[in-house]
Amino acid sequence: MGSLDSNYGTESPASVGQFKPLDPEEFRKQAHCIVDFIADYYKNIESYPVLSQVEPGYLHSRLPKTAPYRPESFESILKDVQNDIVPGMTHWLSPNFFAYFPSTVSSAAFVGEMLCTCFNSVGFNWLASPAATELEMVVMDWLANMLKLPKSFMFSGTGGGVIQGTSSEAILCTLIAARDRALEIIGIKNVNKLVVYGSDQTHSTYAKACKLAGIFPCNIRSIPTTADANFSMSAVLLPIDPLTSLADVANDYGVWFHVDAAYAGSACICPEFRHYLDGIERADSLSLSPHKWLLSYLDCCCLWVKSPSLLVKALSTDPEYLKNQPSESKSVVDFKDWQVGTGRRFKALRLWFVMRSYGVANLQSHIRTDVQMAKMFEGFVKSDTRFEILVPRVFSLVCFRLNTFSSSDPSDTETLNRKLLEWVNSTGRVYMTHTKVGGVYMLRFAVGATLTEERHVSAAWKLIKEGADVLLKGTDSIV
Amino acid sequence: MGSLDSNYGTESPASVGQFKPLDPEEFRKQAHCIVDFIADYYKNIESYPVLSQVEPGYLHSRLPKTAPYRPESFESILKDVQNDIVPGMTHWLSPNFFAYFPSTVSSAAFVGEMLCTCFNSVGFNWLASPAATELEMVVMDWLANMLKLPKSFMFSGTGGGVIQGTSSEAILCTLIAARDRALEIIGIKNVNKLVVYGSDQTHSTYAKACKLAGIFPCNIRSIPTTADANFSMSAVLLPIDPLTSLADVANDYGVWFHVDAAYAGSACICPEFRHYLDGIERADSLSLSPHKWLLSYLDCCCLWVKSPSLLVKALSTDPEYLKNQPSESKSVVDFKDWQVGTGRRFKALRLWFVMRSYGVANLQSHIRTDVQMAKMFEGFVKSDTRFEILVPRVFSLVCFRLNTFSSSDPSDTETLNRKLLEWVNSTGRVYMTHTKVGGVYMLRFAVGATLTEERHVSAAWKLIKEGADVLLKGTDSIV
Repeated sequence: MGSLDSNYGTESPASVGQFKPLDPEEFRKQAHCIVDFIADYYKNIESYPVLSQVEPGYLHSRLPKTAPYRPESFESILKDVQNDIVPGMTHWLSPNFFAYFPSTVSSAAFVGEMLCTCFNSVGFNWLASPAATELEMVVMDWLANMLKLPKSFMFSGTGGGVIQGTSSEAILCTLIAARDRALEIIGIKNVNKLVVYGSDQTHSTYAKACKLAGIFPCNIRSIPTTADANFSMSAVLLPIDPLTSLADVANDYGVWFHVDAAYAGSACICPEFRHYLDGIERADSLSLSPHKWLLSYLDCCCLWVKSPSLLVKALSTDPEYLKNQPSESKSVVDFKDWQVGTGRRFKALRLWFVMRSYGVANLQSHIRTDVQMAKMFEGFVKSDTRFEILVPRVFSLVCFRLNTFSSSDPSDTETLNRKLLEWVNSTGRVYMTHTKVGGVYMLRFAVGATLTEERHVSAAWKLIKEGADVLLKGTDSIV
Repeated sequence: MGSLDSNYGTESPASVGQFKPLDPEEFRKQAHCIVDFIADYYKNIESYPVLSQVEPGYLHSRLPKTAPYRPESFESILKDVQNDIVPGMTHWLSPNFFAYFPSTVSSAAFVGEMLCTCFNSVGFNWLASPAATELEMVVMDWLANMLKLPKSFMFSGTGGGVIQGTSSEAILCTLIAARDRALEIIGIKNVNKLVVYGSDQTHSTYAKACKLAGIFPCNIRSIPTTADANFSMSAVLLPIDPLTSLADVANDYGVWFHVDAAYAGSACICPEFRHYLDGIERADSLSLSPHKWLLSYLDCCCLWVKSPSLLVKALSTDPEYLKNQPSESKSVVDFKDWQVGTGRRFKALRLWFVMRSYGVANLQSHIRTDVQMAKMFEGFVKSDTRFEILVPRVFSLVCFRLNTFSSSDPSDTETLNRKLLEWVNSTGRVYMTHTKVGGVYMLRFAVGATLTEERHVSAAWKLIKEGADVLLKGTDSIV
């Protein structure tokens, strides 16, 4: 499995022979082989422990210290994938994965991604890849339409959208545009006066983006939320923040108003959930990650802005080697000026394949099925008096805990639930995670892995109950 | 090709039937089909114009305004890829692509990327994907070893490396770490005193990263370079900046010293080019993009740092929902703290497949072949007295121009070369680009697209000469 000889380059290069790393027939053979490997992996995925059971450092001892000098066979590499890599995977696509958030996928997105890789176009500007640029504009408008966003966010209106890698990048780009808009008014020397607001439930990536952008840490204001308000940024009971009242404040003070709907935003393609985006017409920007709940594989985060010119002003570069006539005539969009990096892949293919292969009807059905399964799990929890729901479920995440009614010390409850989580995850049959909201430790059951069916949710609940039985047997709790 | 009905959600969802977006057998069928599509594309790639000949807006008129409500067939989507997308591609993988930089690929990287997509692991921390984290550590050390980097950049020593998306991200992360190290000494209120230095040939992404990081634009110092010094940052004739003398200055003043070797760095796996990294042991960080010259497809940029703790200090987050025992025990690496985003893909697979499938021997041979072809092209240019080489070729980029000896006005030469470039690119048979260095307009011939062979370089030169013949026929130039 690889030579240990690191004294590279001592042999004559002539001995290597003609090297053709992209021979189409060799490509065809290997790629077909991997397709079967992957299809079999998906077929057998339930046979693996969901949470990897390896110890830190497991791989280091299995692999050579240096790259091989001579080629190794495709078969031997694939064997090592099966023997050395698969056991070290936490299987995000397992139907028994209920941790973090569902990172959903589909055959359509997979083949779209294969095509994206195939072309390997570096679409920094229109000329370097017209189809990549224009298809991205098309799919961003399609998705905006599915979400019933106002025309002010669409290319066919006065705005536009761009595919970023992750929410972190989308938020960073937006923040830079907002920062520069403000600095233009108050002057760069007053950068210390810029303040950003988010709820204390806002994703940690937000604080990181602020730090990257040079916002003074003392100026990152975290607005406290409470369980009474369902941890939204006001007293209104909503699972996502009430946009309209936030817009009132933002508009009054000339604040850039960004809505991050990375996970829940996808649900708004269903008419019954669309009201969560009410007020979006008053926001400056919106981000949503189809790699979370729109079957798109990582990484794919959609960012729409009302004023593309502010984004471009903040992020554009104009090096001589990229100058070209279409860009200079301003008749085209150059997406390098809408993101952090210069190079960019043809990610729109993935979304295009998903939307066309399934149609809006199936995508809505997919959201509804996940919500339905979460509702079912919520019902299970409610039916067992040893457990309690801690945050009302709205989409497909259920936050709950095992309660120890016999103890008045809240740390006992936390300890018990930590033990339950550990017990469940160590079986390898289910993986879920925890969080703390308002200081309260709770278990998160995130339904929606692409392969999850009702039977997996039922089996997971059975396992959780089994864990509770085991743990409570050793305590004084009243069951 | 798609419904125009945007009144989604009015039909009963029940009519859609059970939706299984990742049925393994459906996946197998579609993926095999795309493999053949892609293999055929690579086989026939020479039949397409290299630079797309479409007009801005070409795609908009061909596609529906909204996503379809009902699913469309895989076959019809694939037909549209061929008819609507392929004509809008600038074919970066064409053997006749000599523009920008070669973005090299391989069968091994392709299948590695397929596996990365397959697992769809979100490796923000070790626990969420142990294999992804540990394989990344292994391949970063392997590549460091191939480059003969000192142990201070390796996990097996005192440093470490991480795979970023692009150089832009690598530079931004490094800059944030450098900024925060300095701010800790001088205090955040003195952010206006931070100064960064780069040569006037430094990539535009560098200035953008500075802007993102909140460095005051007036503090971005561009050090002038000259043709006499081959546009390096000193008077020594080197194709990349002389690291040792720069290190002297940086070390004297406590400046963070970053080396961006995005393109040329890969050549340093060959002993005969390694001396360009002499002095690297005195740098703080190094970035290199295997997606440029190490057959890895986009996007893959390797960043090594001597002090991972400074990077982590600047970029770490610690949200409750990601807390876990291995991270808290500090026994593992959590790569989310080495990058901008939180989520990250299993990119190490691609590099692992490339290094093992080909071995160091073939990778060295691949670099040498490209350099050899560029040398050949340089010879062609030198053999024709109408042309001149403007920057001595060192790796596989040739900068040259057609000269108009008859005119004393330099703008005449620029105009002539602009016309030549336009003439060549409009044939669709070759694509190359231009740049300006020290105010001088020149043509760039970047050799090294994966499928390029000597015959393509010869044919390109023949075409360029033909263009010169046509253009000079209409002028008074002495030929």
